[in-house]
Amino acid sequence: MGKAQREISISEFFAKNRHLLGFDNKQKALLTTIKEAVDNSLDACEEAGILPDLVVEIHQLEQDDRFRVVVQDNGPGIVRAQIPNIFGKLLYGSKFHSRRQSRGQQGIGISAAGLYGQMTTGKGPHIISKTIRGKAHHFAIQMDSTKNKPLITKDDELAEWHLKQGTRFEIEIEASYKRGLRSVDDYIKQTAVSNPHASVTYLAPGMEEARLYERASDVVPERGEEIKPHPYGVELGELMKMLRNTNSRWLSGFLQEEFCRVGPKVAKTIIAAAGLTERSYPSRIAREEADSLYRAIQAAKISAPPTTCLSPIGEERILDGLQKETDADFYAIATRPPSVYRGNPFQIEVGIAWAKPGNDLLDVDTSGRITKKKKKKNTADTENLLGNADEAVRVLRFANRVPLLSQQSSCGFTKAVINTAWKNYGLSQSRGAMPVGSAVILIHMASVWVPFTSEAKEAIAPYNEILKEVKLALQEAGRKLGQHIRKGKRVAQEFEKRSYIESYLPHVGIGLQEILGITDVQREDVVETLRDSMETKRKI
Amino acid sequence: MGKAQREISISEFFAKNRHLLGFDNKQKALLTTIKEAVDNSLDACEEAGILPDLVVEIHQLEQDDRFRVVVQDNGPGIVRAQIPNIFGKLLYGSKFHSRRQSRGQQGIGISAAGLYGQMTTGKGPHIISKTIRGKAHHFAIQMDSTKNKPLITKDDELAEWHLKQGTRFEIEIEASYKRGLRSVDDYIKQTAVSNPHASVTYLAPGMEEARLYERASDVVPERGEEIKPHPYGVELGELMKMLRNTNSRWLSGFLQEEFCRVGPKVAKTIIAAAGLTERSYPSRIAREEADSLYRAIQAAKISAPPTTCLSPIGEERILDGLQKETDADFYAIATRPPSVYRGNPFQIEVGIAWAKPGNDLLDVDTSGRITKKKKKKNTADTENLLGNADEAVRVLRFANRVPLLSQQSSCGFTKAVINTAWKNYGLSQSRGAMPVGSAVILIHMASVWVPFTSEAKEAIAPYNEILKEVKLALQEAGRKLGQHIRKGKRVAQEFEKRSYIESYLPHVGIGLQEILGITDVQREDVVETLRDSMETKRKI
Repeated sequence: MGKAQREISISEFFAKNRHLLGFDNKQKALLTTIKEAVDNSLDACEEAGILPDLVVEIHQLEQDDRFRVVVQDNGPGIVRAQIPNIFGKLLYGSKFHSRRQSRGQQGIGISAAGLYGQMTTGKGPHIISKTIRGKAHHFAIQMDSTKNKPLITKDDELAEWHLKQGTRFEIEIEASYKRGLRSVDDYIKQTAVSNPHASVTYLAPGMEEARLYERASDVVPERGEEIKPHPYGVELGELMKMLRNTNSRWLSGFLQEEFCRVGPKVAKTIIAAAGLTERSYPSRIAREEADSLYRAIQAAKISAPPTTCLSPIGEERILDGLQKETDADFYAIATRPPSVYRGNPFQIEVGIAWAKPGNDLLDVDTSGRITKKKKKKNTADTENLLGNADEAVRVLRFANRVPLLSQQSSCGFTKAVINTAWKNYGLSQSRGAMPVGSAVILIHMASVWVPFTSEAKEAIAPYNEILKEVKLALQEAGRKLGQHIRKGKRVAQEFEKRSYIESYLPHVGIGLQEILGITDVQREDVVETLRDSMETKRKI
Repeated sequence: MGKAQREISISEFFAKNRHLLGFDNKQKALLTTIKEAVDNSLDACEEAGILPDLVVEIHQLEQDDRFRVVVQDNGPGIVRAQIPNIFGKLLYGSKFHSRRQSRGQQGIGISAAGLYGQMTTGKGPHIISKTIRGKAHHFAIQMDSTKNKPLITKDDELAEWHLKQGTRFEIEIEASYKRGLRSVDDYIKQTAVSNPHASVTYLAPGMEEARLYERASDVVPERGEEIKPHPYGVELGELMKMLRNTNSRWLSGFLQEEFCRVGPKVAKTIIAAAGLTERSYPSRIAREEADSLYRAIQAAKISAPPTTCLSPIGEERILDGLQKETDADFYAIATRPPSVYRGNPFQIEVGIAWAKPGNDLLDVDTSGRITKKKKKKNTADTENLLGNADEAVRVLRFANRVPLLSQQSSCGFTKAVINTAWKNYGLSQSRGAMPVGSAVILIHMASVWVPFTSEAKEAIAPYNEILKEVKLALQEAGRKLGQHIRKGKRVAQEFEKRSYIESYLPHVGIGLQEILGITDVQREDVVETLRDSMETKRKI
């Protein structure tokens, strides 16, 4: 049975399984292409400490299902020699091997978009890139999918370019452009929310002119530091590989140099527990000894990894974003302390926006007075994200500031929302279902490595450690929401009681007038006094 | 920004993203390891026309979370030179490039299991394999994950082996063994249902002796034929690649030789519509011409691909399987004619097993008599798959005879079940939810290429063509179920009416006896006559 056995190139594999990369259908292909390019642009700007000015354009071509997509940034640019591999080779990049928070992490996305273009239109991507010191280069690239290698079809140096530095990615793809939920419009809007430091100029078919999402902050988010692996996250096989490849001469040095959070004392404890000696040669440690070392590491007490590597969005910006996009009556934000899964630090942030059922109900103004609530209008441009009170709440999911639009039902975040007891917090919920109410829940995970359920990076794998943290954050925000809703109910009940009594007050006045023979003015005085005394009593 | 850019090996990628391959957690890792090995064994036997005798063993080792897994088959064996690559290299195999129905298709699964073992226990797989003519070889393999290449750590020829041909795969992994839904037990049971020609000896922790699933059929399923790609399924980029690589000298020959269902006449029509000539050299066709050719192909009338490549389970065997595993009152099976998505032929089969709500209700026996239904017992060994009448129905999903146990909510099959209007067929169902009732729905897809949502092959990607076929099959089976349920309801109503009248008949008899002065025997005669005449009338 040896015949016909052969190697499969990763590009052939993904071309055949392109739905794994987010190219399931024409509409999603458009979104994925733009998403991958924008992720890279934002990462590049952040790495270089540049405030991003992005241009995203979608141009419909003559044929109905063909589009030209442009994504341009003012980032640091890419050195000439790297351009073909970055855009024409799957599994190539700088982020996979670094433990640092970034949007891209696989080295697949942008070259997959190029491959998709090539498969559907026969045309590969065009890239223009300029570093601050270099000339601008214009590349056209095709991918040899049998070998997973770039074929350069154009390689020009441009005499001049309109940007002093930056990268422009342009490609023709088979696609379909639609508005609404999970559209590119939606993605751009959510990206602006989670990246308030970016300015995005967006042009899509049907728009008379480009739409500008202006930056709301002039501060580039601090770039998370790169960290070494944490001992708890390493597996036996990886440990063995590290022992073989280390430059450290002694076991004690190996532990301290290759891992974070291991000092001389911890190293000593681990080595003693494993029954080894500190001066063992790492490369000579046998499987059984490595196994003991592994178990000793798992049993040792080691502090959690440093969290300077994480760059959360921040409570204030989450609140800003929610306020900008929803017309809610109440907002609650919760931030968890950083935590760890498989040795990777991560941090969860949650925001809830909630509106009272029915916009014409009562409201409490800032001075505590009960008023009729004015119905707010949705502006044409910003569709209100809040659904009706009898609809499932909408969940906005973000990973390292990237909005996740697809695969909601298989996402760990969704699972955590479903597993939270929302009835305790004033929302209705059937067993095993999403809570119901006019609310939006925003969840963000910042991590040096986000475990996605597929290469398309659309949903978070439901690791227990992550589910737990999301749930705790939801509960914290949920408690605040519950308090607010209960208070609102009390106020509403109180108001009902008062209005009931108040409707009798004039009749009491008339009765008193008849009995006591007082004037109309006196009667009104009496009624007013009664009302005031009731008001005073209520406040107590 | 050129620094630190580098290639990522596919094994490093999957080691870090091992949840993509089904190794999310210890329990699933055990299932996936066994599943991949069993898939390969069954494929190998089928290819060689051998009735499979499989042995599957799970042995708990000293440490709580370490297990030794053995999967052995009596298949044709693997030639010596291929063993290291098949078990020690990701993306290597014979099935990816062939358009033929098989369980495996990616060349990832079994080597990923080896990699997982190596990562978690430091030990790679052991393989013993013997072809009918050759000697048995014993290999131990480690994977160099930086290079995605096998490292052979043992390579022995065995003087003798107990099988005249076959393959034995053995590995130590970190795992956890549990019973119940989505367990290995469940997988083995469902595999026996969908592969009645296989005999499986299964030993798991806690069993006193191995459990034998005997074969229920002595016929090896006919092996589906290998087919050429269908023109409708090819994309522009692939077409261009085929034009470059073909051995055909002329365009007309190219179309006829490289595709199925293209004869001289169809080729002529396509070429004319594309504005090309039949004697064009395929390798000289430019992108624009290829684009015209592509559009002409899409517009041409071409018959559906041959379906001799498909090997469905068959209605009889689906019924057998459902009867064996469920204690139902009614079974409905539906088979769709073969269809096509992206040029790949596929076929959908569906079976429904249904039990009346409450086991103590009325039943109709074969002669049409209404009887009290006896409550059947679940045997200890075969847990009844039917849930209670107020639970969501259980869906058994199969692709090319392989049971799919995880990721139900993101599976296209589930989507099709939810989108079917089950109220029409007598089951209750909330909007957007699974139907509710004491029922099991089995769905099988046979195809030369099953589009899974991830490399772990746990769920079907929701391609529209597939959803449509599944829905049509569900509707067909559903109509039969609906008829049965409605008939049951009529019978029950009839029975109620009759029992109501019957309870009065004795009193009528007594009345007549008093009026007419007849004897007790005559009275009983009269009552019997009345009952008979009612029975006759009911039948009319």
